[in-house]
Amino acid sequence: MARHYLDHASTSPPRPEALAALAAWAEGPFADPGRVHQEGRTVRHAVETAREQVALLLGVRARQVVFTSGATESANAAVFGASATRPGAPILCAAVEHSAVRDASARAAPVETIPVDRLGRIDPEAVVRALDGRGGSPPALVNCQWANHEVGTVQPVGQVAEACRRAGVPLHVDAAAACGQLDLGLADLDVDLVSVSAHKLGGLPGTGALVVRRGTRIEPLLVGGLQERARRAGMENVPGIVAFGAVAAALADEGGRRLRDEEARARRRTGALVDASTGTAGVTLVGDPDPAGRLPHLVCLGVAGVEAEPVLIGLDRAGIAAHSGSACASESLEPSPVLEAMGADASHSLRLSVGWSTTDDDVEALAAALPTVVAGLRDLTT
Amino acid sequence: MARHYLDHASTSPPRPEALAALAAWAEGPFADPGRVHQEGRTVRHAVETAREQVALLLGVRARQVVFTSGATESANAAVFGASATRPGAPILCAAVEHSAVRDASARAAPVETIPVDRLGRIDPEAVVRALDGRGGSPPALVNCQWANHEVGTVQPVGQVAEACRRAGVPLHVDAAAACGQLDLGLADLDVDLVSVSAHKLGGLPGTGALVVRRGTRIEPLLVGGLQERARRAGMENVPGIVAFGAVAAALADEGGRRLRDEEARARRRTGALVDASTGTAGVTLVGDPDPAGRLPHLVCLGVAGVEAEPVLIGLDRAGIAAHSGSACASESLEPSPVLEAMGADASHSLRLSVGWSTTDDDVEALAAALPTVVAGLRDLTT
Repeated sequence: MARHYLDHASTSPPRPEALAALAAWAEGPFADPGRVHQEGRTVRHAVETAREQVALLLGVRARQVVFTSGATESANAAVFGASATRPGAPILCAAVEHSAVRDASARAAPVETIPVDRLGRIDPEAVVRALDGRGGSPPALVNCQWANHEVGTVQPVGQVAEACRRAGVPLHVDAAAACGQLDLGLADLDVDLVSVSAHKLGGLPGTGALVVRRGTRIEPLLVGGLQERARRAGMENVPGIVAFGAVAAALADEGGRRLRDEEARARRRTGALVDASTGTAGVTLVGDPDPAGRLPHLVCLGVAGVEAEPVLIGLDRAGIAAHSGSACASESLEPSPVLEAMGADASHSLRLSVGWSTTDDDVEALAAALPTVVAGLRDLTT
Repeated sequence: MARHYLDHASTSPPRPEALAALAAWAEGPFADPGRVHQEGRTVRHAVETAREQVALLLGVRARQVVFTSGATESANAAVFGASATRPGAPILCAAVEHSAVRDASARAAPVETIPVDRLGRIDPEAVVRALDGRGGSPPALVNCQWANHEVGTVQPVGQVAEACRRAGVPLHVDAAAACGQLDLGLADLDVDLVSVSAHKLGGLPGTGALVVRRGTRIEPLLVGGLQERARRAGMENVPGIVAFGAVAAALADEGGRRLRDEEARARRRTGALVDASTGTAGVTLVGDPDPAGRLPHLVCLGVAGVEAEPVLIGLDRAGIAAHSGSACASESLEPSPVLEAMGADASHSLRLSVGWSTTDDDVEALAAALPTVVAGLRDLTT
């Protein structure tokens, strides 16, 4: 049976550019990029080229890019690093942050939650109020994601950044869901720490980056080596890094033409997915009804009256790979904290997400299958 | 010019088995292994197969293996995790531990150093004494590497493990330098935490493992997801993991025949390297003169009267990639703390290391080049 992969927001298959970079890496030479010999210098050059490519995509300087093992490590490092400079000081956290941000924050310090509205969006004035009038005890960090991994809601990061800058409090932006989907243009934004992932945009799993603002010093999470300008110890994941660089270069080429083309195509396809799905009774869009307020490549649907897991299994049997909730491991199909924070029904959600390899065929397959799957499950329960 | 790579202890090029596994991965399907759809289950199966392969090589059960981004993360996680259970309690650390272990320990708690002799070996009785008579305040952890990354000295890990077990103190063994070079046979050893790396044995950089004893609970270093049985958050580095598994399976095949064959071949070649090198005046072996007391694949040489860096550069110009000291990044060619702890001259060392792809030709090239390089440098300084 033909398969239709509508789970790009979990991980997007490696792009041809990533696989080509991997194949080039596999030709050698191989070395620790920290070594002085010719092989080491050659590998170092490949890593630094990738750093420039990723920096170009993000709109930052190459030396701001710290390669990590992924967005989870980046987020943990951001929270740990910022908290270590002011131990015990509270951390402000948007209610819909990814579990990597929430859990790392909860471990590091007392957490103050910034609530979200029914669309999953924080009010920047709430951040201003939370930062005001604290006297000499500002929080150690504010966490505000670029856009939500589950419902796609884009946060007012620019206004939050401005509020943080005025208060002198560092801001960490988890951009794992947004990077590669939108032009982040970090050059125009005064953000201290930004977490991104390679595999979410068609790079390899096991690679990510933490972008550190010029002048921001944070204690490294991983110690024991001077790699990454002493900001992340451990030998560099060279194949993952060169693949990340190749994907970033492709997306940033011609002033970001590919990124914009893919964004437009993704919006068209997720729009078609919403139209097709909400034709089924009881299926509704969760999150901002205005597509401009959401990520282009993912939509979250509420499916009234049926549990998420059997819907996923039914779709899977029909050849469609999708996801539900914010669970980060199959052990857990817990109700989504993101949806709970939005006041939405957290147990009946379905996330559909498209990417570089998605075809109209995939969208049509979902449109054909979803009504049957949902109707079949409702028949079972009535 | 032909190149001769004698720096396998820094990183060993990916074996054909690793590249074949990578090529198979590149065929897809691609998915988050935590997802319930068919693609996710297929990838999950590949990860779990790799876990069994790595477990077989190490002589442990698959569920004890936690995949990480490398030995540096493993060591940081071991130290952090053990220390978090008894905050403030001191950590015992062999004087010749890798910087990942030393630096993580120094950050986590007060460190008590276990000295080494001139061969770089700790006295297990010193561990017993350090653990005895502490009343109700035992250390949180003992760190004792399996074998040294720089001079190859094998530690009396079995005796240290016994002492720790008697005292009820957890033991972390950094086996990054030893894994894949010697049969670790962890099944026969009662060790709480063992750190290993994939790229040191011909896997991919960016992958490692932390082996956790049954019944040992440690707080995860990376939080925000339930991956790896809730012991390491973040999406799995699937290509790195399947490549690690393939290499482990090859080494463990036929009861470890390949591992033993390679060990014998490496011993022969490092023996030849020592013989060839120490024929040059002022070049001496550092570490245990008995090969049985050292790792099979690496030798450390003292080169009297010349600095390490110009020797490396001279060898590089002669086509030979080698390393010096324990520096973990080219920014640092600091004197080696390992050699300082041994009372050896820390600024004049040369590390030569062989691996699966080494040929007799490589050994002969070193034998031909070293006397000329050293003599040339001595001429400059006299």
